[in-house]
Amino acid sequence: MRHQHPFAGNPLDRGERERRDEAWIATAARAAESRFLPFRNLEVLLSDLPQPVLGWLDGDRVRAAAPDAEPMFLGLADGVAHFAVALPDCADADGVAGRKGWRFEDCRTAGGVLPGPDTGILAQARSNLDWHRRHGFCSACGQPTVAQRGGQVRRCTACDAQHFPRTDPVVITVVADPATDRCLLGQSRGRLSRMRMYSALAGFVDQGEAIEEAVAREVMEEAGIRVTNVRYHSSQPWPFPSSLMIGCLADAASTAIHFDDEEMSAVHWFERGEVLRALAGTSEALTVPGPIAIAHHLIKAWATRERF
Amino acid sequence: MRHQHPFAGNPLDRGERERRDEAWIATAARAAESRFLPFRNLEVLLSDLPQPVLGWLDGDRVRAAAPDAEPMFLGLADGVAHFAVALPDCADADGVAGRKGWRFEDCRTAGGVLPGPDTGILAQARSNLDWHRRHGFCSACGQPTVAQRGGQVRRCTACDAQHFPRTDPVVITVVADPATDRCLLGQSRGRLSRMRMYSALAGFVDQGEAIEEAVAREVMEEAGIRVTNVRYHSSQPWPFPSSLMIGCLADAASTAIHFDDEEMSAVHWFERGEVLRALAGTSEALTVPGPIAIAHHLIKAWATRERF
Repeated sequence: MRHQHPFAGNPLDRGERERRDEAWIATAARAAESRFLPFRNLEVLLSDLPQPVLGWLDGDRVRAAAPDAEPMFLGLADGVAHFAVALPDCADADGVAGRKGWRFEDCRTAGGVLPGPDTGILAQARSNLDWHRRHGFCSACGQPTVAQRGGQVRRCTACDAQHFPRTDPVVITVVADPATDRCLLGQSRGRLSRMRMYSALAGFVDQGEAIEEAVAREVMEEAGIRVTNVRYHSSQPWPFPSSLMIGCLADAASTAIHFDDEEMSAVHWFERGEVLRALAGTSEALTVPGPIAIAHHLIKAWATRERF
Repeated sequence: MRHQHPFAGNPLDRGERERRDEAWIATAARAAESRFLPFRNLEVLLSDLPQPVLGWLDGDRVRAAAPDAEPMFLGLADGVAHFAVALPDCADADGVAGRKGWRFEDCRTAGGVLPGPDTGILAQARSNLDWHRRHGFCSACGQPTVAQRGGQVRRCTACDAQHFPRTDPVVITVVADPATDRCLLGQSRGRLSRMRMYSALAGFVDQGEAIEEAVAREVMEEAGIRVTNVRYHSSQPWPFPSSLMIGCLADAASTAIHFDDEEMSAVHWFERGEVLRALAGTSEALTVPGPIAIAHHLIKAWATRERF
């Protein structure tokens, strides 16, 4: 993979075949060698010694802390089953782990300090647990659902409808104006609170839309700019709660900005030199997202004239 | 857009700003000039004279046929609001239209006969109506939901949770073996019933997965083949019920096929000459999907050595 961003790189084999066997899942969930990654209110358990890593525990510790918790199957590594599990809000990190130096951490923060493969497992686990939290009932008939296939589906206990975990495609785009050697960046209302922080324009792909159409619509809605020559760059899973960020570059076909002030607080054209300084952290006027976010890499691809 | 496939090319302005104004939506839904596209059990109303086109009606006709039907806002064309509306299963096409020569048609079939822009509107409308059919209840608490923003969200009447229409990203890939000038195509169980019909390998992007990772996992699961050099080609909205098809080409890093016989009924390497004949409809041994599906265009891109 040419561009691998944080929250990708999950090394687990998701066990598509094993998941279909409910008895296999149940046995694995009781097996002594299986490993469990606890979450509390969507914060992940980390062990800090000597460096931050995912806080895997064995089943006995998890069952002691939460006898009724339902482990969700993440996949296999070297034949060992790995699960994510949501613990009650009252769980205490050191108490659950049975030793000192463990903590529950916000997953956005954890994504910035964990090794790459751990961020990939974290993304899968957080997205899955969050989805189960919000899908205890059938959207078709309102009755309770139960998890099956280790958490890859929930089935309605009344109407038998199946519901699958969702992944929401989002387009995120750096628009270049080749004529003036500038790029278009904006501030979303509510998202980028720091005054000088600008990012690539982004939005959910709508139903009945191709990627290139979603890019054109979002840039028009947020900035009033027409685009052409939309090119895919790379993608990133973003588990807040469960987006697939589809990173693109595009060229501007117009330059006069008309931004939507309900969605955006500012949109500007930035010169290449300013953007390079912002990437290096030395700009007075501009801050851009850090390398945890695909926006950083798209902005850098434009600023450094990366070929892709 | 370099590659525009059927079900893309929707010419409507989705009216992001107008949707936020519930009074505007209510007024538009009663306006004499507004246009309504009826569906019956997810089949779309078509008018056949002289060529098949979407069967738009005015509000009076729709309200006469279904006084309680809730129109979903699709967007604007030349300032005129366009809506999709689900009619009861007993609705009669000519009766609803008030003239002869109209019919309800399966949307897959309609996609193959309608003009391009109509297929785009059809994709948005069918995906949206299907989603509303299956989301009358809150997945978080089980209580009823109501549509807002002209159908862009459903809100729970009890816990106030918002639920948004879903779009499921799917990767679909033609894998090439450069050493032998062949490509890898397969038959999914249940999907491609015709004996000689083979297509590109496809599957849903999982939570916590980049596009390139999903391609590698799906090809490994379905064919046992390792891939490298995954390149994005183009995308297509596929409204059955609401997928975003992300079309890729990749190179094989292994060649021995081990296919998953629960998911696939056959997987083979095909030579370029055979694939070119299949695209032209002159092969005895191989049939490939028609141009309504992105698979056709991916297979053609490989077979014709398209540069992209």
